Amino acid sequence: MNAIPENMPVADARKQSEITDEQARFFLDQGFLVVRHVLAGEELRLVQEEMMKLYERGAAGAAGDPDYMYGRGGRSGKDVLKRIEYVIDKSDPMKALLGHPFILRSVEKLQGNNFVPTWDSMVLKAPDEGIIVNWHRDAAVPEGCKDPRPIFNVDFYLDEADLRTCLWVIPGSNNWPKEQAAARCARPGFDTSDAIPVPMQPGDVIFHNIEVLHGSPAGEGNPLRRTVYYEFRPGEIEMEFGPHTLEYIKLKQHVLLECIKWRQAVPYAAGEEPFRYRPTGAFAIAGARVPDTFRYPHEAYFRRRN
Amino acid sequence: MNAIPENMPVADARKQSEITDEQARFFLDQGFLVVRHVLAGEELRLVQEEMMKLYERGAAGAAGDPDYMYGRGGRSGKDVLKRIEYVIDKSDPMKALLGHPFILRSVEKLQGNNFVPTWDSMVLKAPDEGIIVNWHRDAAVPEGCKDPRPIFNVDFYLDEADLRTCLWVIPGSNNWPKEQAAARCARPGFDTSDAIPVPMQPGDVIFHNIEVLHGSPAGEGNPLRRTVYYEFRPGEIEMEFGPHTLEYIKLKQHVLLECIKWRQAVPYAAGEEPFRYRPTGAFAIAGARVPDTFRYPHEAYFRRRN
Repeated sequence: MNAIPENMPVADARKQSEITDEQARFFLDQGFLVVRHVLAGEELRLVQEEMMKLYERGAAGAAGDPDYMYGRGGRSGKDVLKRIEYVIDKSDPMKALLGHPFILRSVEKLQGNNFVPTWDSMVLKAPDEGIIVNWHRDAAVPEGCKDPRPIFNVDFYLDEADLRTCLWVIPGSNNWPKEQAAARCARPGFDTSDAIPVPMQPGDVIFHNIEVLHGSPAGEGNPLRRTVYYEFRPGEIEMEFGPHTLEYIKLKQHVLLECIKWRQAVPYAAGEEPFRYRPTGAFAIAGARVPDTFRYPHEAYFRRRN
Repeated sequence: MNAIPENMPVADARKQSEITDEQARFFLDQGFLVVRHVLAGEELRLVQEEMMKLYERGAAGAAGDPDYMYGRGGRSGKDVLKRIEYVIDKSDPMKALLGHPFILRSVEKLQGNNFVPTWDSMVLKAPDEGIIVNWHRDAAVPEGCKDPRPIFNVDFYLDEADLRTCLWVIPGSNNWPKEQAAARCARPGFDTSDAIPVPMQPGDVIFHNIEVLHGSPAGEGNPLRRTVYYEFRPGEIEMEFGPHTLEYIKLKQHVLLECIKWRQAVPYAAGEEPFRYRPTGAFAIAGARVPDTFRYPHEAYFRRRN
């Protein structure tokens, strides 16, 4: 295993208003970046509480609800809850969280001012049922895309992830050719010889490029681990390549605006300078509209040929 | 003056369900195409009646309404009504007209299945106040656009246009380089030596490419002439080059769907096979939504850089 580099840039949301140029550079080169203390105090407590409700509902068996997804538990082999989709629709503090100014300013710095929010999900490791998440890329950059801007997830940790359960990444693998990444993923076992662990505290965040190789061990006897993933994409890439339609881009821009507004109404964000979303050119919007839902199902907005 | 070519293809909406390949070819080469009998009977009567109401409102002076535009009358020199914008918003039969299946099938044939409606306006020649409309192109194809599909207007004639007042076009000038078109437009007077007149009856339609050179003489002693212009653009060109934003494309797709639905409810369209709008890829839409307005002001949706 690689140690965490001594001089690895780590952002601190208590001390910065957005990531620095050096941190942005590290993220572009290495495919991940740790940001400490994004959620704290009342917001952390609320988000934890709300996501615990969703977890409990799902753990009790949300039969028939397609937003609750199950996998085979690592210990019992039984169906255990592994993922919940559309958490923004399911919980108001998650709407306010999408408006988080440190996050949005940093996303804008990396993706430009026409970025759009895409996925919002919670990924779970059920207590003592941790499942190995083998080495993988989340998704591929669209075929033919030469735009160098990163597509990435912002992962909000609601529980501690220690060395037993935490995410491991292979730094720089986001820039590997497809074949190299595939060969590395095919290596048997959860080999960490070229990887580093990224232990996290509740409220910490990782930015991770969709193409950086990552995974996590089974973590025997693990406690519950909840991580919320908000994905963002540069609008220009989404417009040209999808996977979503133009209609989706526009609807999600309005969701973003509404969530920024939402955040301005919560007491725990009172002292903040709100993020100003200012898309331009093809992505300019004529004025905020209250979205008729916060749940635009991906499959309804994927591009199709007929 | 050129005579109307003997063998000029002319479409007839009573006998065809859309323009033929030959007519499409003529339009692409020459920049215009006549379609007879698009509006007839009850629909023609209704549309004439409704547009007369708008004309009368405007002629009485619609002070302060930016949708009513005035110019100097050719005879009196006084302000006379020359154009009314957003007629679909102002009149329900104009909504149903946007759903006209012959028109939409023909637009789809020329622009592909992702076409979008853009402008909807009425252009007027006030009685005995006809103004020379000098040789011009309506607009330029966006700089850098290599897509060969035509951007064009569908002009619905509500009154007769005889040789004194009708549109003149210079066939094929849609394919001229910019410099050649500019030089031709700079020629003094309303020179018709290389042009042909296009006399029309009420209910007839001209498709005219935005780059074909056209104009009309003052038409001394002219009667009222009302022409409704519906412009359409291939979605792919609009997406890449504008002038409108992606948000506009999507909103107008929903306007189009709603107007197609609207047409299915009017008695005079009862026997028709409705047009099925089936945009694909980036332009696919997840399902019809009733638009919150039929008037999306262009200037609110033009692309801007900040």
